[in-house]
Amino acid sequence: MRNLFVIKIGGNVVDNPSALASFLDAFSGIHGYKILVHGGGKKASALAERLSIPVRMHEGRRITDAETLDIAVMVYAGLINKQLVAALQARQCTAIGICGADGGCVPAKRRPVAPIDFGLVGDIYPETVDAGFFSKLLHEGFSPVFAPLTHDGNGQLLNTNADSVASAIAVALSGHFLVHLVYCFEKKGVLQEMDDENSLITDITPESYTRLRAEGIVRDGMIPKLDNAFAAIQQGVRDVVIGAAANLAGIVAGEKGAATRIHE
Amino acid sequence: MRNLFVIKIGGNVVDNPSALASFLDAFSGIHGYKILVHGGGKKASALAERLSIPVRMHEGRRITDAETLDIAVMVYAGLINKQLVAALQARQCTAIGICGADGGCVPAKRRPVAPIDFGLVGDIYPETVDAGFFSKLLHEGFSPVFAPLTHDGNGQLLNTNADSVASAIAVALSGHFLVHLVYCFEKKGVLQEMDDENSLITDITPESYTRLRAEGIVRDGMIPKLDNAFAAIQQGVRDVVIGAAANLAGIVAGEKGAATRIHE
Repeated sequence: MRNLFVIKIGGNVVDNPSALASFLDAFSGIHGYKILVHGGGKKASALAERLSIPVRMHEGRRITDAETLDIAVMVYAGLINKQLVAALQARQCTAIGICGADGGCVPAKRRPVAPIDFGLVGDIYPETVDAGFFSKLLHEGFSPVFAPLTHDGNGQLLNTNADSVASAIAVALSGHFLVHLVYCFEKKGVLQEMDDENSLITDITPESYTRLRAEGIVRDGMIPKLDNAFAAIQQGVRDVVIGAAANLAGIVAGEKGAATRIHE
Repeated sequence: MRNLFVIKIGGNVVDNPSALASFLDAFSGIHGYKILVHGGGKKASALAERLSIPVRMHEGRRITDAETLDIAVMVYAGLINKQLVAALQARQCTAIGICGADGGCVPAKRRPVAPIDFGLVGDIYPETVDAGFFSKLLHEGFSPVFAPLTHDGNGQLLNTNADSVASAIAVALSGHFLVHLVYCFEKKGVLQEMDDENSLITDITPESYTRLRAEGIVRDGMIPKLDNAFAAIQQGVRDVVIGAAANLAGIVAGEKGAATRIHE
C-alpha cells in the first residue's frame, strides 16, 4: 500500500497569510497522495458580525441556525476552499476543492436535538464515508481540499467538525492506503512542560499515554484529542501526528523531533 | 461519440425555488453525460447590499473589485454551488461542485484594464479548458456543477461570465462528445413575436438567421447570443438550444417545439 497524508489545518494557519503560504509550499512539496482538510478561522465569525447574525455557543461549541450554516457554506466551501485551491494550483499542486455533498462523499446524520439542539450540525461515521470517491480522485492525480460541510442525503447541508472529518476520512481510507493523519495546530506538538517548546514529547504509545495521563502531563483538552487519535489508529490509521504547520516538511519526512507521533 | 448536455441556468431559475426544483428533477433525469453551469442570481447583490458594498456597473456589466469577488466566490462557488449539489444528490444524481480553479480546469487571463478596468474579471478560451479533467469526471460517473469562477494560475481567482464558461466548456469537449449546449432562460425560446410564446421559432440555421436579422425579428440582445451560438457550432458543438428551464425534459428528448434549436 502507498502512503497517504490526511492533513488538517485550523484557523490559526488559515488566518495567517505567511504561515499559510509556507504551509502550502510544504503541502505542495509532498510527493504522493495527500488530502487537505481545512477549518474555518475568523472569517466566518467576522462575516456573521458584519451581517449582525448573533454567534450562539453552548459549552464552547457553535450552534448552527440556517443563517449561520449559510455563512459556513459561503466562507468554508466558497471563499477559503477556492482560495486554497487557487493557491495550490499556483504551486503546481492539482488540488480539487470539495465538501461532503460533492459526489455524496461524506454523508452525515443531523445531530439529535436532545439534550441540546446544536442546529444544522452533522455527525459522521467512517463507515459511510465513500472511500472509493477519494481513492478515484487520488488515483487520477488530484489532491482533495475538503471544506467541513456535509449533507444528509435529502438536500440539507450540515456543518461538521473539521477534526472529526479528517479522522473519518483517514479511517475510511486506511483499507486503501497507509494513512498518516496529521493535525496541524499552534504548538510544536504535545509538550512535557506546557510553555516549553523544547520539551516536545516525540512519541506517544498506548503504554506511555497511560503514564502521561497518570502524571498529569497530558490533561484537559489534550485528552479527547489523544483519545480520538488512538481510536483512529485502532481503526486502521498508521499513525497520528500532532504538530506545527510550519514543521510540515519535517513531519512528512518522518524527522524525529518534528512533532508528536502517536502510534501503537 | 456519446451525447453530452452542457446546460446553463441563470438567476431566474436559481432564485425561484419551485422552478429550480422542477429543473433539478429534469436534470437528474437525463440519462448519460451532463454538466450544469450556473449563474448567480440576486443572492450576490443582496449580500453586497447587506454588507454595504456598492455595486459598480459599466454598460450593464458589473465591475469586480476585491470585495465583490469575495462575494461572488462565497455565493456562487459556496452557497449556490453546494446547495445545488446537495439537491442533486437527493435526486440520486452524483453531482460534484467545482469552479475553474479546481483541477486547474478553466484557466483565465485577467481582462486588460484598458479601455475599461472591469477589475478581477477573467477572459477564457476554449483551447485552454482542460477537456481531460471534465472527461475524467464524466467517465467516473460524476455530473460536474460549475460555478463561474476561474483563476489566473498564479493564485488569483477571477469572476467570469457564466454564458462564456458554458460555451467554452462545450467547445472544449466537442472533440470527446456530441455536445448539446443548452441555455435556459425566461422564455420558451426565440420568438417570432416578442411577447407571444406561441410564436416560437423551432429551428435557426445560418440561412434562416440571415433572414431573421434582415427582417428585424432577431435584434438587440438576441444578436450576440445567436452569434455566440453559431461560433460554438463552428467550433464543433453539435447544436445550441435556447429555451425555458421548465421545458428541459422536452429539450433533452429532442421534442420539436420544446425550444429553439440552432444548428447548421
